[in-house]
Amino acid sequence: MKALVFTNQLEIQDVAVPEPASDEALIKIILAGICNTDIEITRGYMDFRGIPGHEFVGVVEASQQKQWIGKRVVGEININCHQCTYCKEGKGNHCPNRSVLGISGKDGVFTEYVTLPVRNLHEVPEEIQDEEAVFVEPLAAACRIVEQIDLGQYDCAAVIGDGKLGLLIALTLKQTGCPVVLYGKHDDKMSILPRDIKTIKTGSDTKQKYDLVVEASGSSAGFHTALDLIKPAGTLILKSTMHDVIQMPSAKLVVDEIVLIGSRCGPFREAINLLSNHKVDVKPLITGIWPLSQALEAFSIAQGSASLKVLLNPSE
Amino acid sequence: MKALVFTNQLEIQDVAVPEPASDEALIKIILAGICNTDIEITRGYMDFRGIPGHEFVGVVEASQQKQWIGKRVVGEININCHQCTYCKEGKGNHCPNRSVLGISGKDGVFTEYVTLPVRNLHEVPEEIQDEEAVFVEPLAAACRIVEQIDLGQYDCAAVIGDGKLGLLIALTLKQTGCPVVLYGKHDDKMSILPRDIKTIKTGSDTKQKYDLVVEASGSSAGFHTALDLIKPAGTLILKSTMHDVIQMPSAKLVVDEIVLIGSRCGPFREAINLLSNHKVDVKPLITGIWPLSQALEAFSIAQGSASLKVLLNPSE
Repeated sequence: MKALVFTNQLEIQDVAVPEPASDEALIKIILAGICNTDIEITRGYMDFRGIPGHEFVGVVEASQQKQWIGKRVVGEININCHQCTYCKEGKGNHCPNRSVLGISGKDGVFTEYVTLPVRNLHEVPEEIQDEEAVFVEPLAAACRIVEQIDLGQYDCAAVIGDGKLGLLIALTLKQTGCPVVLYGKHDDKMSILPRDIKTIKTGSDTKQKYDLVVEASGSSAGFHTALDLIKPAGTLILKSTMHDVIQMPSAKLVVDEIVLIGSRCGPFREAINLLSNHKVDVKPLITGIWPLSQALEAFSIAQGSASLKVLLNPSE
Repeated sequence: MKALVFTNQLEIQDVAVPEPASDEALIKIILAGICNTDIEITRGYMDFRGIPGHEFVGVVEASQQKQWIGKRVVGEININCHQCTYCKEGKGNHCPNRSVLGISGKDGVFTEYVTLPVRNLHEVPEEIQDEEAVFVEPLAAACRIVEQIDLGQYDCAAVIGDGKLGLLIALTLKQTGCPVVLYGKHDDKMSILPRDIKTIKTGSDTKQKYDLVVEASGSSAGFHTALDLIKPAGTLILKSTMHDVIQMPSAKLVVDEIVLIGSRCGPFREAINLLSNHKVDVKPLITGIWPLSQALEAFSIAQGSASLKVLLNPSE
């Protein structure tokens, strides 16, 4: 099968179709999404080598759990041991023995077929189209914030970054009833948001302060914008996995008693509900769909500042 | 009166005795303690100019609130407006209009007399000696951690730093029933802790991991030790006000979903209770008491790596 492989560079290779283990399903990829983490991987993040990609929707073609065959699925990316303290305490996403789909120790989805444990799978309801289902993983990451904090206690959330993650977070937080302001650099990207989410050009106004700020720009500058915007005793969510080291003025965090919360993978069930109930419209975020054979071009486009979600279609 | 004044250097000057405003008390200082924040001030922290010092015990000599006269007191250091949203929400320590005793906009206690609003004062019970009472402010800062998090949910706390703040935090957390391990560099300092607080030489063992880590070393190295020691999904309390900028690997905070909490001033009432009930023994932390006339020497000693709490006595 064709696969996009990262060795020390990205290239398209012919590789063997993987064999599912007894607890796994073999999934034929329908669509895969390029995430900023994939781009960071090509810059050295996690020292990953292999097939990147972790956002997908696919169809189960083979599994010893026959009831899954033919089902349209999305899949959680952390493949846990289910034995350790973290797994037993329900913190499986922090299992020290985990591999992570397309990120660490497990080939990902920028190819035709992937294997995943059946327990990682979620069936996609009919009312969710393929182009929407491929957003379940990043949308779940946005939903993670709602799990971590009580949004009802905040007056207003500022989201930093008008990339795909920032936009998904703004849309998701807004669903909770919390007022949301998004700070971004690109009018065209911010224009896809509904009118009840205020948008502000980064740098044009830092007088307004917020008790909740979500950093989703993935840049050191974005982190410093977040620090400028946050009120004393406020909560700052760090959402982007950057390969960067941030310069952090520790005295500000201490004196202002800022609570800084790292936030990663989230609940698929919530994301699926947001999509099936049409609470969040992800389709305006799609920049385009490229055949897997043009994955190198697609990667290049995904890195352009005008791009949002670039999807790959392995069947073309 | 004599005062230690920071202009661009520390020097002893003759200054006028301050006049208490209608809501203030004039307090004769019995003892004052030198804190690392005072040392940071001499390195440029907060751009403070004037009389530093914020840890004290004293006696009220004059006030329009006559019932305070003659009382032995300690005082909260944040002088708030009591008008703004923060003050009204009980977050007066974050009042944007505040001055802070000996740190920002208000002369401090390295002198013979100080003025403070009466509402900042707490009477010191008889059973607390002067040498103990001067620890109420830093001990309250240690108690702040107990206000911010639910210690019952943690298996074990690691405290980084065997300076006076680290030791006070270890003693305070231990009182809650939480097992505590202190990481430090100085056997003599760590030896003042009771045996039920384990001590480990920093660098000798980073295999053990903790779900709660308190950074109280005030150094960039201490922060990185804290990051080495913390478990995924753990809580890292930042307690030291450093003039430094920390290099923070943001991906670790995000991937491991670390919660980082800045922590500053705390509840005087709790600290007074810990001392009056003899729950925490602070006297082993006293390096010595110097007359105010030798404050420059005392400051120099306070900066030595062998020192813990250096006290100043203005009446000598």
